[in-house]
Amino acid sequence: MIANALKDKPAKVVGIVHAETSTGAGQPLKDIASIVHDAGALLIVDAVTSLGGMKVDVDGWQIDACYSGTQKCLSCPPGLAPVTFSDDAVAAIENRKTKVQSWYLDISMIRKYWGSERLYHHTAPTNMNYALLESLRIIREEGLTKRWARRLANHKALRAGLSAIGIEYLAQAGYGLPMLNAVDIPEGVDDLKVRRQLLKEFNIEIGGGLGQFKGKAWRIGLMGSACTLSNVMLFLAALEKCLFDQGIDFERGASVAAAVEVGSK
Amino acid sequence: MIANALKDKPAKVVGIVHAETSTGAGQPLKDIASIVHDAGALLIVDAVTSLGGMKVDVDGWQIDACYSGTQKCLSCPPGLAPVTFSDDAVAAIENRKTKVQSWYLDISMIRKYWGSERLYHHTAPTNMNYALLESLRIIREEGLTKRWARRLANHKALRAGLSAIGIEYLAQAGYGLPMLNAVDIPEGVDDLKVRRQLLKEFNIEIGGGLGQFKGKAWRIGLMGSACTLSNVMLFLAALEKCLFDQGIDFERGASVAAAVEVGSK
Repeated sequence: MIANALKDKPAKVVGIVHAETSTGAGQPLKDIASIVHDAGALLIVDAVTSLGGMKVDVDGWQIDACYSGTQKCLSCPPGLAPVTFSDDAVAAIENRKTKVQSWYLDISMIRKYWGSERLYHHTAPTNMNYALLESLRIIREEGLTKRWARRLANHKALRAGLSAIGIEYLAQAGYGLPMLNAVDIPEGVDDLKVRRQLLKEFNIEIGGGLGQFKGKAWRIGLMGSACTLSNVMLFLAALEKCLFDQGIDFERGASVAAAVEVGSK
Repeated sequence: MIANALKDKPAKVVGIVHAETSTGAGQPLKDIASIVHDAGALLIVDAVTSLGGMKVDVDGWQIDACYSGTQKCLSCPPGLAPVTFSDDAVAAIENRKTKVQSWYLDISMIRKYWGSERLYHHTAPTNMNYALLESLRIIREEGLTKRWARRLANHKALRAGLSAIGIEYLAQAGYGLPMLNAVDIPEGVDDLKVRRQLLKEFNIEIGGGLGQFKGKAWRIGLMGSACTLSNVMLFLAALEKCLFDQGIDFERGASVAAAVEVGSK
């Protein structure tokens, strides 16, 4: 699809979201990068949701520009966007002919601020930099691969639990994200009532569907330090209560039983 | 000057810095606002350094758009920019024909995010919002007018102290800022050596000159909670030591004596 689009209409840049939060689908970036580079374009990747929660092999996959956020799987307060650029991206920045229209994201100025020149560009949110440093320390203590494995294990337990009470995922098999579980809302269920009850009774917040999925999907996050088997089990138990309270028909207890079985492997 | 410029070249908007940190000069905004409005333009004011440290009468002075920062006289960590708009500014935003070129500062979107619609625009730096709230609480405890008076009193003590050892201000009399004291470096003094010694020996950081004032001016801040008579006296004593160590000729002890006298009034 991308290859054909680039053949019809050559582009300098292709931008894509690695872990897409409205559908809970992940993109096979390695394959996409070759297609984009074969067409002579640069690849920009939004890794806001993926970084820290699953593999983001920026150099290995040949991503040219990659940005993320601190508030998802890095488990840090929101407010910063880590960025990185390939040599090709830096060359494109250096050779641009037109003036950058935004002061805020003028990378050529930000480079000079972060570089040895220390040319003033903005007042840095210093406390946020310390917060990010501490978050990265915590991630290093756990280890990146262990962190990815923890997320995947808890995702599998959640998926097994939801499946046991007939709740299926939006994303095509094999492309589901571990940290963002977007699922179909079962027929007859009052979306808003469930989400309000989860929040009020159990202090659990899940996301509603966006755009065409509004009222049709739930988005259940397993990000950062919130990604524990304990949270998965409590969520499933709480969801069963919400469904039970609405008189929905399902195999009671099945979701927690399935999650326990998968979570004990 | 502004009136003539607007006659020669009509403008929709005039932007000005209230408290200018390279020269330490304050702008008489009330007068400027009438000139700008008489010419049919809107007035945008940068109140980054002034807000919380001196009077910023946004509505009284008829400022149309005003922004500030949290990290100066609000004494809060850096990372947010409080903004406010007049009815005329809001009307201009609502009636604009061209698309906003920057996502980041698309006020029309930010309005919808902060308004009752809660349309997503960005992930807010939540912790910073709490920090600002706490800073504003501390300001309310002290009281705004007391806060302005504290700054002015300490500025007068500093000014008296510097004057006593022959160091004069850059800004025209009557326009000097209380929170940013930009002064001439006395002849024969090694700028960098003084600033390094202040930092290393006394943990006091003052700013160097910018642009044409590089190497010729010092910028001494009296912002937020750092604005105390104790800090003024320590700084003057420390500066005397730096000048003494460089063999500069001045009336030793005079700066502290003058500051003590003014500070005791």
